[in-house]
Amino acid sequence: MFASQLTRKIRTFTRSLTSTCRHSNIRRFSTMETSGEVITCKAAVARGPGEPLVVEEIKVDPPKKMEVRMKVLYSSICHTDIDIWKGTNEAQRAFPRILGHEAAGIIESVGEGVTDLKKGDHVIPIFNGECGNCVYCKSEKTNLCETLRVNPMKSVMVNDGKCRFSTMDGKPIYHFLNTSTFTEYTVIDAGCAAKIDPDASLKKMSLLSCCISTGVGAAWNCANVQAGSTVAIFGLGALGLAVAEGSRVRGASTIIGVDINSEKFIKDFINPKDLGTPVHEKIREMTGGGVDYSFECAGNVDVLRESFLSTHDGWGSTVLLGIHPNPRMLPLHPMELFDGRKIIGTVFGDFKGKSQLPHLAQQCINGVLNLDEFITHELPFEKINEAFQLLLDGKSLRCVLKF
Amino acid sequence: MFASQLTRKIRTFTRSLTSTCRHSNIRRFSTMETSGEVITCKAAVARGPGEPLVVEEIKVDPPKKMEVRMKVLYSSICHTDIDIWKGTNEAQRAFPRILGHEAAGIIESVGEGVTDLKKGDHVIPIFNGECGNCVYCKSEKTNLCETLRVNPMKSVMVNDGKCRFSTMDGKPIYHFLNTSTFTEYTVIDAGCAAKIDPDASLKKMSLLSCCISTGVGAAWNCANVQAGSTVAIFGLGALGLAVAEGSRVRGASTIIGVDINSEKFIKDFINPKDLGTPVHEKIREMTGGGVDYSFECAGNVDVLRESFLSTHDGWGSTVLLGIHPNPRMLPLHPMELFDGRKIIGTVFGDFKGKSQLPHLAQQCINGVLNLDEFITHELPFEKINEAFQLLLDGKSLRCVLKF
Repeated sequence: MFASQLTRKIRTFTRSLTSTCRHSNIRRFSTMETSGEVITCKAAVARGPGEPLVVEEIKVDPPKKMEVRMKVLYSSICHTDIDIWKGTNEAQRAFPRILGHEAAGIIESVGEGVTDLKKGDHVIPIFNGECGNCVYCKSEKTNLCETLRVNPMKSVMVNDGKCRFSTMDGKPIYHFLNTSTFTEYTVIDAGCAAKIDPDASLKKMSLLSCCISTGVGAAWNCANVQAGSTVAIFGLGALGLAVAEGSRVRGASTIIGVDINSEKFIKDFINPKDLGTPVHEKIREMTGGGVDYSFECAGNVDVLRESFLSTHDGWGSTVLLGIHPNPRMLPLHPMELFDGRKIIGTVFGDFKGKSQLPHLAQQCINGVLNLDEFITHELPFEKINEAFQLLLDGKSLRCVLKF
Repeated sequence: MFASQLTRKIRTFTRSLTSTCRHSNIRRFSTMETSGEVITCKAAVARGPGEPLVVEEIKVDPPKKMEVRMKVLYSSICHTDIDIWKGTNEAQRAFPRILGHEAAGIIESVGEGVTDLKKGDHVIPIFNGECGNCVYCKSEKTNLCETLRVNPMKSVMVNDGKCRFSTMDGKPIYHFLNTSTFTEYTVIDAGCAAKIDPDASLKKMSLLSCCISTGVGAAWNCANVQAGSTVAIFGLGALGLAVAEGSRVRGASTIIGVDINSEKFIKDFINPKDLGTPVHEKIREMTGGGVDYSFECAGNVDVLRESFLSTHDGWGSTVLLGIHPNPRMLPLHPMELFDGRKIIGTVFGDFKGKSQLPHLAQQCINGVLNLDEFITHELPFEKINEAFQLLLDGKSLRCVLKF
C-alpha cells in the first residue's frame, strides 16, 4: 500500500517542491549540564539472539578523545539490525548489545580533540565513518575509512577497546556498527557523526543514516544513472524504493520493480511468481535487450544472477546493495564478464558520510528527494519490539521510533 | 629470455623513439587481376582436433556484399588458435577449418557496397568486428558489435551462412573468429578489416590483431592505468607482456609479474612456486596493501582469485583477459565486492577495432609503444606446425609466419 503511494509520486511528480523536509524539531534538550558526567537513560538492550529487546535503564559514559555523546531523538529499524538481533552469523554475535544505526539527534557533549562538532549540533550517525586522515579518506576513489568503516564484528570503541555503555550494576553493554542508536544517549566516534542543517526535520533525516543514502547513492554515485536510462530493482523494501527515488530524480525513463510480494507495487512491477519464464527474459523483452542498470537489494544469490542477466549486454551494470549472509559464492562464470556486463558492490551508496551527507540532507530539504512515503509507521521508543515485528512481517517500510 | 629482453626495455627506456614500426613492406602483390575470380592458393587446414595442420591448395571465393578478400602477408599464432585446434570445447568444433586471427595483409578485392576499403589498402583483420550501424557500434560504452562481435561458435559468413573456402574437390572449409588467417587469401567482413598506414611494418602490425590491442587496451581503456599507479600481471605470455608495455607507457610506478615459469622474468617477478604464502599476501606486502590494478591473463579461476585479492581494498580493479574454458564459476563471495574491489572483463582491450586501431597503429609507428621484443621467432608459413609447437612448449612469445 505504502509502496503504491510512492508510485503515485513517481508517476505524477505532483509532490510539492517546497521544503518537505524542513520542520521545527522538538527541542527536548534538558538545560541541565551533563557534560563530563555519566548519564543514566533508557535503552533497548538485545540480551540474546532473537530474544525480545529489554527497555531498561543503563549508564552512558562521557565521550573520550575524538568521540561525541549524542542524544538520540529518532531511530528507525533496518534489516541489518534484525539480522544481528537474530544472530544469523554467529561470528557477529555479541550480547548484551545496543543495536540500531538509522537515527538522528543532537550532540550532548564532545570529547577531547573534537573541533568540528559542539553541543547542540544536529547530527546523523554514520555506520560507515570517515576519520578524514587515512589513505582511504584522502582518496576520492573510496568511502571506506581505515578505522571507521562498516564492521559488524566490531563491538567496542576503537579508542580503548572498551564500551561506553554499562548496565546499572556495571557490566559492559556492547556497541554496534559504530552507532548503537536504540538508546536515549549514545557515544560514537566524531568521524561517525555528520552535522546537518538544524532546520531539517530530524525524523526524516534519520533515514539518511542508512537506507536513503545507500539506495540513492547506489543510483547516483555507483551506477551513475543517466536521464532516459532504464533501471530494474530487485527487492522493494525501503532500500529498493530509495534506489527508485534516486533513479527518478536522475530522469530514468523506465523503473522496473521486482518483488515476490505483490503488495510492493511500483509502476512497472514484476512478481517472479507470476511468470513462467526467468525474470531476466521478461525484463529483456520489456526493454529491448535489457536494462542499463540493475540493483540487487534482496541479498539472495539467485536473485543476484537474475539481476545480472537482466542488464543489456555491452554496457549493463549491476549494483550489489543487499547483504548476503549465505556462504554461496557469486553464481557467475568468468566468461560471462566478457559480454560487457559489470557487477559492483556499494557500501553506503559510495557517499563519504561525514563530508557528503550535509549536502544530501540539503537536497532533501530542498525537495529534490522526496522522503515522505518512506516513513509508514511511528511508535514511541518503548514499543520497539512492535516496530521490529512490523518490519519482520513486511508491513512497514520504515517505522520511526520517537524518543 | 625474450621476456627479460623486454624487461631491459622496461627498465632502461633506452629504445629509440624513432619510427621502430616503420618499414618498407615487401610488395609481393601479383599484377594479375584476380578480382571477381576464384583464387587457388595455399592454406593450413585443421582437419581434426589436435591433428597436424595440412598445408594444401584450396579455393577462395570472391568477396560478397560488404566483404573483402585479403592477401595475408604475415600471421602469428595465439593460444586461442591452439585451444580451438585442440577442440577443448566440443561445442566450438568445426572441421575442416582455417584457424588464425592475428595477421596483417593487403586488400585484393572488395565486394558490393564496400566504400571505405579498396584494392591495395593495408589492413589488419579484427576478430571482434565493427559494422558501424548497430546500437552497439553507435554506443560509446561497448566495442561488441551486434553481428560482428567475437564468436568462437561462428564458422560461416554472416551474409549467407556459407563458406568462402573450399577444398579442391569443392567441399566447404569452415571460417574461424571472423578472420581465418592461416591462408594466403582470406575473405572477411569489411567491418572486420582495419585500414592502417601503408608505411607501417605489416609484420609488427600483425600483433595488433589480438595480443597487443587486448593487453594494451586492458591497461589503457579498461583499467585506465594512471601515472604512479601499481600493477600486477598474472601470466606473462605475449598478452601479459602487452599489459606491461601498456602500463609502462602510462607511467605505472610498479609492474609486478606473476608466472610459474621463472624464465618469464620481468623486473618485479613472483613465482608462486617459490612462495610459502599466497601470492596476494606477498603482493600486498610489497605494495602497502595491494596494487591499484591487476590483470588476469592465465585463464585460471584460482589465479583469478589471487589476482582479485592482490588489489588494494577500496579501489582495486581486476581486469579479466584470460579465456576460461573450465566450467568453474567465479570464486568470489558477493560480500567480497563490498570491500571496494572491482572485477571487469575486456574483449579486444575495449578498442573499437575498425575505427580505433588505425590510431593505435600510428602510436606504434611513432614509437609510443614498443613491439620489438614480442616477435621472438619467424618461420615460413609452410612450417606452421613447428610454430604451433614453439607456442605449446612456451618457447615463443610470438612466432610470425611469413607468407
